[in-house]
Amino acid sequence: MGMWGKRDDMVVHGREPFNAEPPAAALAGAAVTPVDAFYSRNHGPVPRLDPAGWRLTVDGLVARPLRLTLDALRSRFDATEATVTLQCAGNRRTDLTSVRAIPGETPWGPGALSTARFRGARLADVLDRAGIAPDAAHVAFHAPDVSASADPPQPYEVSVPRDRALAPDVLLAWAMNGAPLPPVHGAPLRVVVPGWIGARSVKWLTRVTARTTPSDGYFQATAYRLPPAGGDPEGVALGPLPLNCAVLTPADGAVLPSGPAEVTGYALAGEGRTVARVEVSLDGGRAWSRVALEEPAGPGAWQRWRTTLGLPAGDVHVLARAWDSTGAGMPESPASVWNPKGYVTNSWPRVRLHVR
Amino acid sequence: MGMWGKRDDMVVHGREPFNAEPPAAALAGAAVTPVDAFYSRNHGPVPRLDPAGWRLTVDGLVARPLRLTLDALRSRFDATEATVTLQCAGNRRTDLTSVRAIPGETPWGPGALSTARFRGARLADVLDRAGIAPDAAHVAFHAPDVSASADPPQPYEVSVPRDRALAPDVLLAWAMNGAPLPPVHGAPLRVVVPGWIGARSVKWLTRVTARTTPSDGYFQATAYRLPPAGGDPEGVALGPLPLNCAVLTPADGAVLPSGPAEVTGYALAGEGRTVARVEVSLDGGRAWSRVALEEPAGPGAWQRWRTTLGLPAGDVHVLARAWDSTGAGMPESPASVWNPKGYVTNSWPRVRLHVR
Repeated sequence: MGMWGKRDDMVVHGREPFNAEPPAAALAGAAVTPVDAFYSRNHGPVPRLDPAGWRLTVDGLVARPLRLTLDALRSRFDATEATVTLQCAGNRRTDLTSVRAIPGETPWGPGALSTARFRGARLADVLDRAGIAPDAAHVAFHAPDVSASADPPQPYEVSVPRDRALAPDVLLAWAMNGAPLPPVHGAPLRVVVPGWIGARSVKWLTRVTARTTPSDGYFQATAYRLPPAGGDPEGVALGPLPLNCAVLTPADGAVLPSGPAEVTGYALAGEGRTVARVEVSLDGGRAWSRVALEEPAGPGAWQRWRTTLGLPAGDVHVLARAWDSTGAGMPESPASVWNPKGYVTNSWPRVRLHVR
Repeated sequence: MGMWGKRDDMVVHGREPFNAEPPAAALAGAAVTPVDAFYSRNHGPVPRLDPAGWRLTVDGLVARPLRLTLDALRSRFDATEATVTLQCAGNRRTDLTSVRAIPGETPWGPGALSTARFRGARLADVLDRAGIAPDAAHVAFHAPDVSASADPPQPYEVSVPRDRALAPDVLLAWAMNGAPLPPVHGAPLRVVVPGWIGARSVKWLTRVTARTTPSDGYFQATAYRLPPAGGDPEGVALGPLPLNCAVLTPADGAVLPSGPAEVTGYALAGEGRTVARVEVSLDGGRAWSRVALEEPAGPGAWQRWRTTLGLPAGDVHVLARAWDSTGAGMPESPASVWNPKGYVTNSWPRVRLHVR
């Protein structure tokens, strides 16, 4: 077993902060990702919180501030379970680094994304119990993990707008895949915001604060913003996820015999939408064929797809593209979406096969 | 004055059915499009309904079917006013026909889109009064305009899912820009579904029917579906709009002096999102500059943008692209989004200027 209970063959991008993604084939193998394969994105050392001493504080613009034990959360609120896919804002970054280097950022492949059955209380119910004030336009999440790479170094804090916080799908989760959260995934409690970048699904949650403005912490005001290729002092704060897809098997660079081959992957539509269609091409995008696409297990869950392609001998590139329920597709080339932070890699994915 | 009270210089694509769009400069000139410039998309002759004899029937899976006069709608329900942009699913089709012909479809430029202040009752309030049943998963809209181009010829009918029908922004509108609806825009009553293709905002509404399944009428089951380039018997039913943008001024093909020139256009994020950024390029997409972008007047309203560019002498192409609040951009080339019906033209818009 690898670090933090992960599979031995995880692709470990860094040991501390621990950053690792599953090999594509492991991700492809299950609709719900086993915990030992679930990707892990961290900004500092993993905090070890004592569940007995841990409390969740709910404060700020609320009528009745709360201080809750884990038992209180579990016993005083309805529990909800949902299949949710979390995705790092840097997922698929290596497709951009193939265009131009992105120094200082983790080279995530298509595995900075995983799916679990999360169980917890609805954040809306907790905020309702606390009596969130009408002027609380944002809800901030605080955690004790301190990032040395933040400027200045600081504990993790981000926020979501009030409407998102009060939607019934946002959970304060204590379990994933039927077991208590392990330390590396936020024990004893984490936020789960379906359809948003993983950075808003705060792990090791200790405090929820209702406030008038978005978080001004480093991870929202400075990091996790999309700069344009041309430079932009501010950038677009990343929150809801865009449409995306990836090819998982065969792996990029695989050597295969010619003839029929199964090709699998995933697509994710992001908040409020579903994936309507996925197509693949073997000739650089001139001819496309439609693949078989799973229905999503719920809002914010990925949709896996599969097809069988007849592979000719030679160097073969498999391209994929998806459409969402608005008819929106994906940009063709990684060059057109390249940006200095390597966020939102949503160009057509490509795997290169050597067919004998 | 032109047909149906429109400006003399409307671009008229057909007289009956009447299909016309405003010249780009007229569209660019106002945040709320004057009624005489508002685009008009029809599938049959414009019905002339007698307001005195007209009734709205609300039936199907409801506890209390209704039959309402216009006075009853205006007096028995709260009136709401909202700035909404309507967009035809074929908007910007000419960008696709420049790649390959699309026979039999109207060659809309970037003006198959307009914005008005609509005033009416909330559809949700009317359905609540009627007592919509729990198993009513869809709400259909019926109108008396008969399309000879439908197969078989039939009156207009489409539907929206229950959740969309019950959202507070969907209106049954009797007025636009402070005056009663004119005949060509649906008098006496039309549906307004912000953020969805115009085809769901049914004009000359006579009947609202709660039902278990989507409409099986021609305009939803057969037309207004996105076929892929590779052929697909079914296609994706078009409903919510994708991110899009266009350049309005200078007009495509304009002859201009070199030096600073104001460039204006619009962007539209579609349901549940906003436009975060628009950029323009003069060098085919290598260097981009950010433009000044208006905030939307409300959900479903366009966002106008403007910038000043220094035009060099020669043939100059202005490219534009937008990002929405998820960080999603737009496909680069019309070739990549070309489809046999010419729907969802959301590639980077391009205007060609001759600069002296």
